[in-house]
Amino acid sequence: KKNAEILSGQYGTNLLLIGAALMLAIAHHDPFVKEEHLLSLVTCLMILQLLWMMWYILARDRQKNTRTEKDVHATTCWIRGGLTLLALLSLIMDAFKIGHYVGYHSCVSAVLGVYPVIHATHTIAQVHFLWFHIKDVIKSYETFERFGVIHAVFTNLLLWCSGVMSEAEHFLNNHMRRLSALGYGNLTTGHSEPLCNCTTSTCSMFTSSLYYLYPFNIEYHIFVSAMLFVMWKNIGRTMDLSSNRKRLATKTQGLSVGPILGLLALASTIGILVVYITHVESLQTRQSAISMFYIYGIVLLLFMCCASASGLLIYRVDHIPLDTSKNPSRQLDTELLFGSSIGSWLMSWCSIVAVLSTNSSPPYLWTNCIYSLLLVVEKCMQNLFVIESLYRQPGDVESDDPELQSAPEIFSVTSSLAPPYNGIINRAYETPDKACVTMENEQEESGPVYRCPRKPSEVPLPVGNKVVEPPNIKRQILKNLSVFLIMCNISLWILPAFGCRPQYDNGLEQETFGFSIWITVLNFAIPLNLFYRMHSVASLFEVFRRV
Amino acid sequence: KKNAEILSGQYGTNLLLIGAALMLAIAHHDPFVKEEHLLSLVTCLMILQLLWMMWYILARDRQKNTRTEKDVHATTCWIRGGLTLLALLSLIMDAFKIGHYVGYHSCVSAVLGVYPVIHATHTIAQVHFLWFHIKDVIKSYETFERFGVIHAVFTNLLLWCSGVMSEAEHFLNNHMRRLSALGYGNLTTGHSEPLCNCTTSTCSMFTSSLYYLYPFNIEYHIFVSAMLFVMWKNIGRTMDLSSNRKRLATKTQGLSVGPILGLLALASTIGILVVYITHVESLQTRQSAISMFYIYGIVLLLFMCCASASGLLIYRVDHIPLDTSKNPSRQLDTELLFGSSIGSWLMSWCSIVAVLSTNSSPPYLWTNCIYSLLLVVEKCMQNLFVIESLYRQPGDVESDDPELQSAPEIFSVTSSLAPPYNGIINRAYETPDKACVTMENEQEESGPVYRCPRKPSEVPLPVGNKVVEPPNIKRQILKNLSVFLIMCNISLWILPAFGCRPQYDNGLEQETFGFSIWITVLNFAIPLNLFYRMHSVASLFEVFRRV
Repeated sequence: KKNAEILSGQYGTNLLLIGAALMLAIAHHDPFVKEEHLLSLVTCLMILQLLWMMWYILARDRQKNTRTEKDVHATTCWIRGGLTLLALLSLIMDAFKIGHYVGYHSCVSAVLGVYPVIHATHTIAQVHFLWFHIKDVIKSYETFERFGVIHAVFTNLLLWCSGVMSEAEHFLNNHMRRLSALGYGNLTTGHSEPLCNCTTSTCSMFTSSLYYLYPFNIEYHIFVSAMLFVMWKNIGRTMDLSSNRKRLATKTQGLSVGPILGLLALASTIGILVVYITHVESLQTRQSAISMFYIYGIVLLLFMCCASASGLLIYRVDHIPLDTSKNPSRQLDTELLFGSSIGSWLMSWCSIVAVLSTNSSPPYLWTNCIYSLLLVVEKCMQNLFVIESLYRQPGDVESDDPELQSAPEIFSVTSSLAPPYNGIINRAYETPDKACVTMENEQEESGPVYRCPRKPSEVPLPVGNKVVEPPNIKRQILKNLSVFLIMCNISLWILPAFGCRPQYDNGLEQETFGFSIWITVLNFAIPLNLFYRMHSVASLFEVFRRV
Repeated sequence: KKNAEILSGQYGTNLLLIGAALMLAIAHHDPFVKEEHLLSLVTCLMILQLLWMMWYILARDRQKNTRTEKDVHATTCWIRGGLTLLALLSLIMDAFKIGHYVGYHSCVSAVLGVYPVIHATHTIAQVHFLWFHIKDVIKSYETFERFGVIHAVFTNLLLWCSGVMSEAEHFLNNHMRRLSALGYGNLTTGHSEPLCNCTTSTCSMFTSSLYYLYPFNIEYHIFVSAMLFVMWKNIGRTMDLSSNRKRLATKTQGLSVGPILGLLALASTIGILVVYITHVESLQTRQSAISMFYIYGIVLLLFMCCASASGLLIYRVDHIPLDTSKNPSRQLDTELLFGSSIGSWLMSWCSIVAVLSTNSSPPYLWTNCIYSLLLVVEKCMQNLFVIESLYRQPGDVESDDPELQSAPEIFSVTSSLAPPYNGIINRAYETPDKACVTMENEQEESGPVYRCPRKPSEVPLPVGNKVVEPPNIKRQILKNLSVFLIMCNISLWILPAFGCRPQYDNGLEQETFGFSIWITVLNFAIPLNLFYRMHSVASLFEVFRRV
């Protein structure tokens, strides 16, 4: 088992590295390695993944009567919903790409037409797979399925990398265009238009819209690969049954300050984005646009720091033991949060070194320094807050209440609409050691919640602990804080995703580190930072649902 | 606890990133960020670590009568011995640096003199710490000690990074010098000599010797940080007692083919190294030197692949359940082996892409391609072999033998020289739930081995399962294979560490990827590859001792 794990991991890593080597060659504009080669590789990998998914779904269907174990922590309904939305936007992008190809089909490679078609098929099949199979804990055919899942993980990672590369190239070209428009030397852009004219009238519309859809496609692929990675980690795992139960329903009472402040932040972000993009183009308003961005960023980050700090303070007040049960999904969340912070931290420290060592003095010199420091502090505190929240015992306020503990049957009411004999049949049908496994069928989201009886003496009916009590003040504050942080993180995702990247425009770091080193740092750090923001939105939403 | 872990991890990561930002600025030869700044930062960090280590040792000494738990897996005697050797070479390097400073003291910054003195003190104190405290499982003052240990981890990582940077710069300068000697354009080197003359006669000797000592210093720091990281992971851990027992003594019977072939490989490597370095300098012999290197590499790698494959085949023959007990040291070994392979894999795939896309045809074109492919395959197979060996039950051949299992008391003899009442006193003195903890004092290496009694009914005396039987043929083969692989890995470490880097000299990849991208890839991949080779030597030695 260990060997199959290592072998499949090595296979996947090497797939990704082949793609990375091709991308590096393309980034150099080597005449013999073209984007078509990369696209053909990715297309082949997607076809392989499609075949594997078909095989998997068919094989599962054949053994439908044998029940499969599920890992209820693997994903949640709203994550899958969000991914479906992102997938829809990816499909629109594919449609635009096909339109683009149709316009230029006489002079571009056929790969550019085949790729979006395969990508669209792949997206649809994968979303279907995510909805119905991502929670499976695979226990048979392990080696083949392990390879299939890891192939899917790294195919999506490769698609993410290739999206990131396209976007980075787009931003670099934009930056060059701006610089030459401002008269800073005549740097040639590497962007190559097709050599023939477009046969339809909508080509330029397709091209320009594509770049607004790219960020969504990028987030889609990285999220899918994280989810598939959890599935891979779950292969052959024996579920720890006592912790494998579903969350309680979300209550949205008492939400007021958080959403209002959050929406305010979101609205002002969009305003700042528009002002920044329009003003950074001209020489007179350039510096004031950058200054405005930093001041806005400082204010926003200060609020976020306060929010995370008060959340941590609330946790310090009540000492509740942490939930240390094994949960690959949560552990991956933690590691990804930590790992993706590194990009942004590196960028911030580079900015600070640049500010401290420069001898030019633009008006935004010290605001840049403070902004970068706050970025480091804010990420540290937010990580602490999110991780502590995820490791708290779920529903701690209720289940650790001594009054409720003493008489659980009285307060608990059946929360589901499923007929009660459902639970009885299952209990009789299953073998004793499997009695507490949460068996989910296709209608799992609406199905009842089975709790594992800890002691054989108390066997409660399948119920959710829905208590008809006003939620206490701490939980209300935590809920408001997490909603506010979600909105702020969305704001900080929108800004760089749609073109507000002062790291390109302020010129400070470029002076200290040189153009090529700084662009390399940015190409590494900005995609990680974008992923960090999206991932922390997802984690904070989980926090919101748990408290 | 979780929070302290995350917080200290974030602290350490940010330390490293500050250093990385400074290094990037130095790499650009920014006029305002000099090497002195980086050295002062590192010196401050080393002083902090020294203070922490002093505090820790004093605090431990005060509570000497309370026994501390130890993690016997954390390190072995021979790893500490090897590290002491590397530390000695580092001390010689520091002496050379001090000599260099004395020669140039009138015109260089005082930091260049203070740094080697502090580094030497740091090295001595750290080796002392490694010998006597690295196995401690810390259970008190957790937060402060956690920060201290992680500070030590990242200080060593930063020292590694700075060593890697110096070496990369040295190789780049060498490469430039060779290129301009061969007439390929007049690239200026970034190396800056001090502006005054040396006052002693040995300066140039010091400078040129330094670069032969650098590789050892680099390996020293990365190994120390890996060991300290295991210590950090062990903080607050409750030891799983049944698996916490020491290894058996190494038997060296039946070793013949492996060492002979290995020594042959090592000797021919040194020959190849000398020939390569002398021949690559001139235009006529350059290509044949590179071809020779690749052919030699192909032969060596083929042998290594065969060795790993036969090892894996032997494991396939006897099905023994894997040891899945928790062991942070082993898990880190696995992850490091896997993670450090990535650098070399990326380099290999880049070479393959370059070979497939080039239109020039040097004589070593296809040997380069085969060499790179074999490098990928060899690393995959060796990783599988090492990881499978590490996860095997220790002493599996003996303890899983049904005859031995049925009558363990008869076959087991006391293997240690310690007086037998030692064990009896401990058993009476300790509380029942602590009775199986392996208590080790300063003389732990020679002390007896306590086994945890699995069932209360069978309480064996403290014994090691040393069986006076001839070791069977499979184990002999495995021992020979691992010795051979150790020698081969040392060979493949020596070649790049002492200047045989055809990736710089062959010009193929540089043509496809461009100078700056390819140098970036090499600066990332070569240090990882060097670490991989050293780390696999250590892991294979562990394999050698276990089989």
